[in-house]
Amino acid sequence: MSGPTQRPTLSAVASRAAVSVSTASKVLNGKADVSEETRRRVERALTSLGYSRRGDPRPHGELIEVVFERLGPWAVELLKGVESVAQREGISTVVTIGGTFDAQPETWIDAVMRRQPIGVILVFSTLSDKEKRQLRTRNIPFVIVDPAGDPAPDMPTIGSANWDGGGEAVRHLLGLGHRRIGTICGPPQLRNARARLAGYKSALEAAGITPDPELIVEGDFSTDAGFRGASTLMDLLNPPTAIFAQSDLEALGAYRAIQGRGLRIPEDVSVIGYDDLPMAELAYPTLTTIRQPLLEIASTATRLILRLRNAEPPLNVRTELATTLVTRESTAPPKS
Amino acid sequence: MSGPTQRPTLSAVASRAAVSVSTASKVLNGKADVSEETRRRVERALTSLGYSRRGDPRPHGELIEVVFERLGPWAVELLKGVESVAQREGISTVVTIGGTFDAQPETWIDAVMRRQPIGVILVFSTLSDKEKRQLRTRNIPFVIVDPAGDPAPDMPTIGSANWDGGGEAVRHLLGLGHRRIGTICGPPQLRNARARLAGYKSALEAAGITPDPELIVEGDFSTDAGFRGASTLMDLLNPPTAIFAQSDLEALGAYRAIQGRGLRIPEDVSVIGYDDLPMAELAYPTLTTIRQPLLEIASTATRLILRLRNAEPPLNVRTELATTLVTRESTAPPKS
Repeated sequence: MSGPTQRPTLSAVASRAAVSVSTASKVLNGKADVSEETRRRVERALTSLGYSRRGDPRPHGELIEVVFERLGPWAVELLKGVESVAQREGISTVVTIGGTFDAQPETWIDAVMRRQPIGVILVFSTLSDKEKRQLRTRNIPFVIVDPAGDPAPDMPTIGSANWDGGGEAVRHLLGLGHRRIGTICGPPQLRNARARLAGYKSALEAAGITPDPELIVEGDFSTDAGFRGASTLMDLLNPPTAIFAQSDLEALGAYRAIQGRGLRIPEDVSVIGYDDLPMAELAYPTLTTIRQPLLEIASTATRLILRLRNAEPPLNVRTELATTLVTRESTAPPKS
Repeated sequence: MSGPTQRPTLSAVASRAAVSVSTASKVLNGKADVSEETRRRVERALTSLGYSRRGDPRPHGELIEVVFERLGPWAVELLKGVESVAQREGISTVVTIGGTFDAQPETWIDAVMRRQPIGVILVFSTLSDKEKRQLRTRNIPFVIVDPAGDPAPDMPTIGSANWDGGGEAVRHLLGLGHRRIGTICGPPQLRNARARLAGYKSALEAAGITPDPELIVEGDFSTDAGFRGASTLMDLLNPPTAIFAQSDLEALGAYRAIQGRGLRIPEDVSVIGYDDLPMAELAYPTLTTIRQPLLEIASTATRLILRLRNAEPPLNVRTELATTLVTRESTAPPKS
């Protein structure tokens, strides 16, 4: 609509604010080394003159890329962890959701290549051999972070200590006096699920209890699996007094099965989960669980990327951070 | 450790793959206009020669920036909505968490300015006058998206229709036969909370019911407020048969108060929430609620940014998208 009009220049802004053009430019570009007083004066001049900059393209600075296979319940905590480190370094965090590239000509990996980030944090359960090669030939450092899955052993990964976490859940229940402890497993093809189950068995054995195969039921980390698993366990002739659900979603499914039978948690049966998702403390009763250190996992991955920038790839690291027991309302001593 | 060694050049890669250097470069940079067959051949050559590129800086392409005041329960759905549009346009999505800049010399707005995105989507309840001026003088289009708060009327915003949503919740309960319907409010200083309450009153009046002040209790959208509000309502001499909690978190708090009294949902009292957070369908019983169209809000905001790029700012738009009733287990006809 409007034709070209006389637009105020940055030097007019600088002169109105009684500063140099370079100082005015610093304020305009958000640089730090300008006093608060000067910054305010330049801001006032920008506003009163109606200054408005057009299209001078400039570098965006360094990027770090977080690629999610899908945005699951872990996404928020992981992003907080990445941002906490990246922001301090003046690095921008780019988020890509790999799954949404389905049926599109460009893949997530093409998009990453195009952006040339200093590194990539992959929240992925599986990576194809082709994807691994593509990342390696581009010399872009990457780290796999996977709260749910099973990264290949030849990849740099940051995760949590699943065997220890599984054991911690069982030791908490043993400490309350439980002896007959059931568990609902994760998918057996996932390394983290196998490690949690092994931790369950080891902790029982360390307490002199032989794991009872009828107390170990299959699952896939979903609420449905938790519902079915807890139903199977509570229908046993001699049901357990406590259940270790190997994910929080399974634990919430177990709640439905137990409460649907008119039983109370923790009075009639204790339940402990694994993850500490936001819903754990909103459930009724609130869920005792094993907390995965998502924020620390993500910030450690980000710091590793910053180190890898200057290193010779490939650098294979597998780091496991400790889990924590979060005691809430869903566990108590067994009925005597 | 290792000294400089003879590294394979891109022209060696091109010759091995029997393509031009420019084609090899296209594959390396993830450009789209290369056939799948050629791409595979170049990938094989890159791998077999052990090609590894160093540090040639290149533009990152266009960025769109999503600034969260804090990463709340809405973040995941909103990011999906932004990504779904940005990805198709080949635009990178940068995520910034404004709150984490506390006590740091650089503010989120400085960081945004430095990156020069094509536009900014602000997931913010409040924006200072200074911040508004800074955004406007930089000529960077922005849109406010705020599922929780109260954007100023002079800002382009995309939100949902709160008055209609409040009415829809009440009409659902009226349709089940409820006449004595309580509500737990949001913070009265927020426009969306006031609109939901007004919707509640209007729907009752349209059904010939005069709103009873003792059935309207204060709140702030939190689980604690829901617990306190439902406790107050259930302690009335003549308690309501249904409760409209104006946020899902309040509804989950109301669950605790109701179930803690030994009452059943929905047999003894119905509960309906507002938001449709992920926890709504994990609660026991699953929560009937009013769904905010978060994905559509975010994708609409992103498309608006793409339009604003070519328009003359300031362009003020306030768009409200329709909510949907999601019927689950927590509502039923009143006991007769």
